[in-house]
Amino acid sequence: MSRRQLRLGAELNGVGNSIAFWRHPEIPINASVSIEYYKKQALKAEEGKFDFIFIADGLFINEKSNPHFLNRFEPLTLLSNLAGATSNIGLVATVSTSYSEPFTVARQFASIDQLSGGRAGWNVVTSSLEGSAHNFGKGEHPNHGLRYEIAEEHLGVVKGLWDSWEDDAFIGDKTKGVFFEPSKMHTLNHKGTHFSVRGPLNVGRSKQGYPIVFQAGASESGRDLAAKSADAIYTPYGTFEEAKAYYQDVKARAVAHGRKAEDILIFPGMSPIVGRTEEEAERKYQEIVELVEINQALNYLGRFFDHFDFSAFPLDEPFPDIGDVGSNSFRSTTDMIKRDARDQKLTLRQIALRVSTPRTAFFGTPDKVADRIQEWFEGGAADGFNIYTAVPNGLIDFVDLVVPVLQQRGLFRTEYESNTLRGNLGLPVPRNRNTLSYTVS
Amino acid sequence: MSRRQLRLGAELNGVGNSIAFWRHPEIPINASVSIEYYKKQALKAEEGKFDFIFIADGLFINEKSNPHFLNRFEPLTLLSNLAGATSNIGLVATVSTSYSEPFTVARQFASIDQLSGGRAGWNVVTSSLEGSAHNFGKGEHPNHGLRYEIAEEHLGVVKGLWDSWEDDAFIGDKTKGVFFEPSKMHTLNHKGTHFSVRGPLNVGRSKQGYPIVFQAGASESGRDLAAKSADAIYTPYGTFEEAKAYYQDVKARAVAHGRKAEDILIFPGMSPIVGRTEEEAERKYQEIVELVEINQALNYLGRFFDHFDFSAFPLDEPFPDIGDVGSNSFRSTTDMIKRDARDQKLTLRQIALRVSTPRTAFFGTPDKVADRIQEWFEGGAADGFNIYTAVPNGLIDFVDLVVPVLQQRGLFRTEYESNTLRGNLGLPVPRNRNTLSYTVS
Repeated sequence: MSRRQLRLGAELNGVGNSIAFWRHPEIPINASVSIEYYKKQALKAEEGKFDFIFIADGLFINEKSNPHFLNRFEPLTLLSNLAGATSNIGLVATVSTSYSEPFTVARQFASIDQLSGGRAGWNVVTSSLEGSAHNFGKGEHPNHGLRYEIAEEHLGVVKGLWDSWEDDAFIGDKTKGVFFEPSKMHTLNHKGTHFSVRGPLNVGRSKQGYPIVFQAGASESGRDLAAKSADAIYTPYGTFEEAKAYYQDVKARAVAHGRKAEDILIFPGMSPIVGRTEEEAERKYQEIVELVEINQALNYLGRFFDHFDFSAFPLDEPFPDIGDVGSNSFRSTTDMIKRDARDQKLTLRQIALRVSTPRTAFFGTPDKVADRIQEWFEGGAADGFNIYTAVPNGLIDFVDLVVPVLQQRGLFRTEYESNTLRGNLGLPVPRNRNTLSYTVS
Repeated sequence: MSRRQLRLGAELNGVGNSIAFWRHPEIPINASVSIEYYKKQALKAEEGKFDFIFIADGLFINEKSNPHFLNRFEPLTLLSNLAGATSNIGLVATVSTSYSEPFTVARQFASIDQLSGGRAGWNVVTSSLEGSAHNFGKGEHPNHGLRYEIAEEHLGVVKGLWDSWEDDAFIGDKTKGVFFEPSKMHTLNHKGTHFSVRGPLNVGRSKQGYPIVFQAGASESGRDLAAKSADAIYTPYGTFEEAKAYYQDVKARAVAHGRKAEDILIFPGMSPIVGRTEEEAERKYQEIVELVEINQALNYLGRFFDHFDFSAFPLDEPFPDIGDVGSNSFRSTTDMIKRDARDQKLTLRQIALRVSTPRTAFFGTPDKVADRIQEWFEGGAADGFNIYTAVPNGLIDFVDLVVPVLQQRGLFRTEYESNTLRGNLGLPVPRNRNTLSYTVS
């Protein structure tokens, strides 16, 4: 297909992103540790010809954490399992560069990439929560700038390790007894500021070359790292104008780094609420809002501000000025919250409920949701969307009701083009840095 | 069943443990990164009612490494995948305590344990190869004693994290909006010599309580750590007398630590060569020996001695005295090699070929192999065996030919007793340290 195609991802998250989702009668309370639940969701996404499923992550919990965060699968083990249940869909796992060893990360992703036949993706994050440090023997969580410096070096080492073996290194000549060609095995010998890793990696490249690299940061350093070295970006939800400005900015940065604008794909997060009628969508939303208690909503809000305690503030007065609390954690989210509160003159109660139960712009009948998707996609605000669901059966509804509309409009595939994630995303296989290139005359 | 039952594990290793195995016409050259190959082996082991499959590991390669080590799956991702293809068999993965974070290890194993319904096991190793340090930013590989000190603390932290949540912590009361009971969530707050980990872990216990803990060390420190804290031990191959002495020693140590002798199971590694006739077994063995070249055998031998170069020594003279080389690595193996060379007056060539192609005592017709197994099992040298194959279709032959004999003799199960690894091994579910115990009157 020469026409630019929409891409879709499905963020799967058990008992859900919102604090009250789990209370809905249709959600199994063990969904976050039920492999049957995840398998069903993954197969539905594959039935809908989604490009990938996406697993978010976190490394620190306390008694105020969102239910899903308390007891859930670890992303790499989960996706390794789902690789066996699926055949075409991509498998994107979040792993933090602040609390992992590049050798282990490179190896586990390369292994998933091999066992899935080239469907792995890594969502590179730097970990937002201060508490993470205490689970990894670190006295202090590195500040935002340092985390991105570490991330850049970490990612560079991982990519270097992924190039340890040229694609034709493993000859396997049984007669001569030659298993591999030694000149096609490469030792990285990285000695940097934060990491020192010799290599080679003990697993070769899959047919997609590298796993797809996602980045989720939206800050300045996040944008820059992504523009330089990511294949795809997962951005937080915002307005069309915000998304468009972000999109243009990141594409321009990529071009400034010598890349093509189309070599980096931008996926806003999106939480559709779809009904066969407007009223059905409204009913589904209200069912969820009614499950939220205001104290839980305040706790949840506090999580984005380093567990700031909002309960001492009056609920129905303007969102309080709390200064710079939380600026080292979910920076882009807290900036957005503060700005919305100021610009739209929202009260603390309104902000708390909005954050815990987002009323998305992708709301209503299948046609209306498809219109909005098309508007963002064709209007230069998105290459696709990473969809997470805030209502029960949200993914099922989206696949059954919205995907057919997108397909009829020629925006979305009716069959997979490839059985690798890179192939379906239309991204080029990266050249192995150690393979000599010859001029074709 | 009240009668003591034999236990069986299958160590799966792609193109094989021996240096020439991959050259056999029946072995796919990509076996170490072929999920189809592993799936077939795992299903065969499950058909044979084996207790577990077992994945060995290593963290360092160079151009002299065994073919299987160069390009293979990472154990945790591999077993997460195989969890989906199997339903009763246990899944044991090797992970080193010298180059991993306890929080990540606890989490990934707990996650596999959840997604397999209680079938995970961790083979705790300390990493033998000096080169590993260079892949993890460490200047120096810790010495043998220090590695075991680190391992003991690491394992303690992991077990502590596994107890973060009491079994009845997740209430999930949708009406009251109570997801969990806060008093049943426990923060570890470990501050030790090598690790400092706060917790809690963000995943709860499976129905087997903890993953089964294997230990593979055979040195003094290895035995002691295992006797104190392991559920099972994988021991290197040796003679019946050696295995018996080892067995008695470890059981006595366990009792000295206040445990019951039957709470720690001992699995010698065993590489059967089975034929319908003695001649068929002999032919299978010869097929493999003929694939070995002496230079490769010398390289392989050198691997156990920190890549010592044996090629300068005369092949047909007594095994050379090379002093203490390699004593920090595969200590128990190198001690055994030196002792055998001395006691049996073996030449360098004989040692090299023997090490690269072990001629096992479990050799011959199904009845003969079963006799030997019974002798070890009933003679106090083994609770079971961890079987790896040195000939093509070795596992298939064992399941088809030897397992029925063991079943007829009443030594081995004909059906799984449980769908957890712990249940099948007959080991008790460990009590959560944080759960109050009440006296039943």
